[in-house]
Amino acid sequence: MMTVIKGEMLYEGKAKKVFLTDRDDQYIVEFKDDATAFNGEKRGKIADKGHLNNEISTIFFRMLEEKGIPTHFIDRLSEREMLVKKVTIVPLEVVVRNIAAGSLAKRLGLEEGTVLPKTVVEFYYKDDSLGDPLVNPSHIDVLELATAEQVSTMEQYGRKINEIMKDYLKDKNVILVDFKLEFGIDTQGNLILADEISPDTCRFWDAETKEKLDKDRFRRDLGSVEEAYQEILRRLGGTVS
Amino acid sequence: MMTVIKGEMLYEGKAKKVFLTDRDDQYIVEFKDDATAFNGEKRGKIADKGHLNNEISTIFFRMLEEKGIPTHFIDRLSEREMLVKKVTIVPLEVVVRNIAAGSLAKRLGLEEGTVLPKTVVEFYYKDDSLGDPLVNPSHIDVLELATAEQVSTMEQYGRKINEIMKDYLKDKNVILVDFKLEFGIDTQGNLILADEISPDTCRFWDAETKEKLDKDRFRRDLGSVEEAYQEILRRLGGTVS
Repeated sequence: MMTVIKGEMLYEGKAKKVFLTDRDDQYIVEFKDDATAFNGEKRGKIADKGHLNNEISTIFFRMLEEKGIPTHFIDRLSEREMLVKKVTIVPLEVVVRNIAAGSLAKRLGLEEGTVLPKTVVEFYYKDDSLGDPLVNPSHIDVLELATAEQVSTMEQYGRKINEIMKDYLKDKNVILVDFKLEFGIDTQGNLILADEISPDTCRFWDAETKEKLDKDRFRRDLGSVEEAYQEILRRLGGTVS
Repeated sequence: MMTVIKGEMLYEGKAKKVFLTDRDDQYIVEFKDDATAFNGEKRGKIADKGHLNNEISTIFFRMLEEKGIPTHFIDRLSEREMLVKKVTIVPLEVVVRNIAAGSLAKRLGLEEGTVLPKTVVEFYYKDDSLGDPLVNPSHIDVLELATAEQVSTMEQYGRKINEIMKDYLKDKNVILVDFKLEFGIDTQGNLILADEISPDTCRFWDAETKEKLDKDRFRRDLGSVEEAYQEILRRLGGTVS
């Protein structure tokens, strides 16, 4: 691959920075160690998180691409940097759930750990000032956040990605409790998977002990946060190079 | 109509009591003056509300039946009593919105009074202990609150009732901002409209002055609450007999 030149920073989010490059249709994502929770109310750092999440996301994106899911991933560039396709992010978080935890457990009055008889798919409006509220198709329509066809496609991708990831994680002894996806529209107008797939955006539980191996360790002050992220990378067969 | 004999009380809700009758498939609903808001946190009484809401609901149910909407309404029995079909209530509130107000304005960050470019339909899980949370079809599916077909039918009825009511209220100089419906399954297994249709369950604004003629006057301590309910009944052509 020809060397790509990193340009000016386009955007700094809570966990990532996005940079322009010398290529019109490509961005560089840089993963940060910053951790936030509860809509930014809780802030901290997780040592080496940026590096770990870049490695973990790289493994997931490559695996999903092989299984036919279109993603923004192009290449891993360095410890913390990923080359991605330029997309316009759809301002929705697509959450897919297999087991009740977090806000779902609270919303529906289910005990955390309850296995859901059917997969739950939710859409949240990405708006910090509103606290990322749950929205339904008619809200999405009124705010013109996505077309009905895009909503349907995102839900289908979410369900397919869930099946692929559950299957992939099974022999790694990891339960996929739930996860959050973000999608974008690329320069050709295709809806593709964007953002990251990591312990920041997924709930991973050890299949035997049900130990949490994800950002809930940070949210709930459970300790051994970095070790959990490292453990996920190790189980995926990756190493901190 | 043969006299119906009121039996024991089956259920007491926040605004109504439901009684058994000597007929297997019929209940008597008695409308109360009690008013609650914010999931029961605010409590009070609105003078004569039970009577007014019985009259107003009677007018709406009769009008909707004429327009082909199946409802639980059978007859008005007295000032505060309505004879209805026995139903099992579907534990969902179906909310239909034409103008942003209340929780929608908050959820989506819209100014109250914003005309929605499209009708919004929402489902809330009727559970006081959870604060009646917004739910989507996959939540409804997981909790088995209703079948997918029932959800679709309730949404279709909601949209149809909205068109009928908007049209009906237009020459009465009343804007239908939003309203809440509840449905039930009757003894024949049909999904029919239940509960009530009143200033407790609808937001009505005067078409010219935008004055609120509904329970928001109680929720927000705007005064002249009873007068607003009376004004709605008056505009519907009803009288407090």
